[in-house]
Amino acid sequence: MTTPLFRWRLRLAWFGDAYVGWQRQPNGLSVQEVVEDAVSGFFGGVPVIARAAGRLDAGVHSRGQVVVVDVPVQRSSRAWVRALATIFPDDITCLAAEPCAPDFEPRRDAVGKHYRYRWLERWPHCPFRANRTWHIRRRLDVPAMDAAAQVLQGTHDYSAFRAAGCTASSPVRAIRHIAVRRVADEVHLDVRGPAFLRHQVRIIAGTLTQVGVGRFDADRVAAILASGCRRQAGLTAPAWGLWLEEVLFEPPLHWDETAGDA
Amino acid sequence: MTTPLFRWRLRLAWFGDAYVGWQRQPNGLSVQEVVEDAVSGFFGGVPVIARAAGRLDAGVHSRGQVVVVDVPVQRSSRAWVRALATIFPDDITCLAAEPCAPDFEPRRDAVGKHYRYRWLERWPHCPFRANRTWHIRRRLDVPAMDAAAQVLQGTHDYSAFRAAGCTASSPVRAIRHIAVRRVADEVHLDVRGPAFLRHQVRIIAGTLTQVGVGRFDADRVAAILASGCRRQAGLTAPAWGLWLEEVLFEPPLHWDETAGDA
Repeated sequence: MTTPLFRWRLRLAWFGDAYVGWQRQPNGLSVQEVVEDAVSGFFGGVPVIARAAGRLDAGVHSRGQVVVVDVPVQRSSRAWVRALATIFPDDITCLAAEPCAPDFEPRRDAVGKHYRYRWLERWPHCPFRANRTWHIRRRLDVPAMDAAAQVLQGTHDYSAFRAAGCTASSPVRAIRHIAVRRVADEVHLDVRGPAFLRHQVRIIAGTLTQVGVGRFDADRVAAILASGCRRQAGLTAPAWGLWLEEVLFEPPLHWDETAGDA
Repeated sequence: MTTPLFRWRLRLAWFGDAYVGWQRQPNGLSVQEVVEDAVSGFFGGVPVIARAAGRLDAGVHSRGQVVVVDVPVQRSSRAWVRALATIFPDDITCLAAEPCAPDFEPRRDAVGKHYRYRWLERWPHCPFRANRTWHIRRRLDVPAMDAAAQVLQGTHDYSAFRAAGCTASSPVRAIRHIAVRRVADEVHLDVRGPAFLRHQVRIIAGTLTQVGVGRFDADRVAAILASGCRRQAGLTAPAWGLWLEEVLFEPPLHWDETAGDA
């Protein structure tokens, strides 16, 4: 006989520096492990499995990962947020928690993800943005980067923008939105699409960096895409400049981020 | 016979987490030590003494400390900024460098300092602002805090707002400007004055926290100030919420923060 379980949906933010990414790995601490241990502790030690909308690479930051867990007792959203705030280390936060349908699966049900890549574009670095931006000591040609980025929009075979170890069965993906813009002393690449290959956004960022410094142009990026050859593209940009901004659902999820408030 | 020396003025930002403060201490690494070693390295190992406009407590952050050093050779502002960007660790930055008069002394010539204290006011913490804000899990009464802060403006004996170990000969100081305001999910205390006692801004922040949560009111803060008794005031707020925003000079210094740019 099994105890009935209640499914809860959590919105999680974390600073990626200390973690091997979302998914459990033999080589270091994962966010999944911290979350499962915390939720287990909140429910008196029951075994807990947490499933997320996607893995993230080691060092990548999350502003809105969506995770589900099944637990044996109903608790309020406020109790969830407050308990996890007390248990989690300083670099992981449960922004919101809500009960959800027992068949909700974040990976399957998500319609897309919004990633942002951040460059810090100035000569001296900023002591307050180490490990959260990629520091580039060059002036980047942002209009050229944005023009080249548009080449990558649409549905394509992204073999040239895929890590060697990527295990996806197909290299075809769709990018619905891609844009590069300057924001004060940073340059931001925003990308939205239903799913991404391993390192895809970081290889795009590395390739657009070559455009920004004048080594590649939009035609070259089109040729790289057509080549399907990873070595034609730029280097994989560092993980610490990459942010998972949001997991997209249709209809959108409306989180009550004040649930923990007094 | 001594080599003629050239005096340079540096504008330094740092993230305070890893340092015992500006000044050399036997118990840990100071920013002064890192700066002196870096400048010494830049000039082939000559001994260098760096003097700042003021000490900062361990853990306090700087956006604009002003420091002077005397060096044997003239180099360009660009060379300074680029060399120090290469030598400094990620949590210290030389934002700008310029030659200055040989009798310029930042501590003596500064007319004041602008400090900011930052509270993060929400239930779950923010993984991106650990060690840079004081996380308070209460709604703060910001108008009451601002009203109580006004009691502290002007020239007073601040004995009640002075650390036990403070070695200043007089407890009289002047606060020229003080204000508390809400900025998104943070509350900011801004204080400007010619000089401060040890821990003065942090004890003011701790006392205004008591006002914010409803334990003290403006009359109580007036009574604390009049009492001259440290134990009447609030706890010393944590160092990691405190930021040296700017060292004030008259006329103001106009730094060229693009000096290192290409």
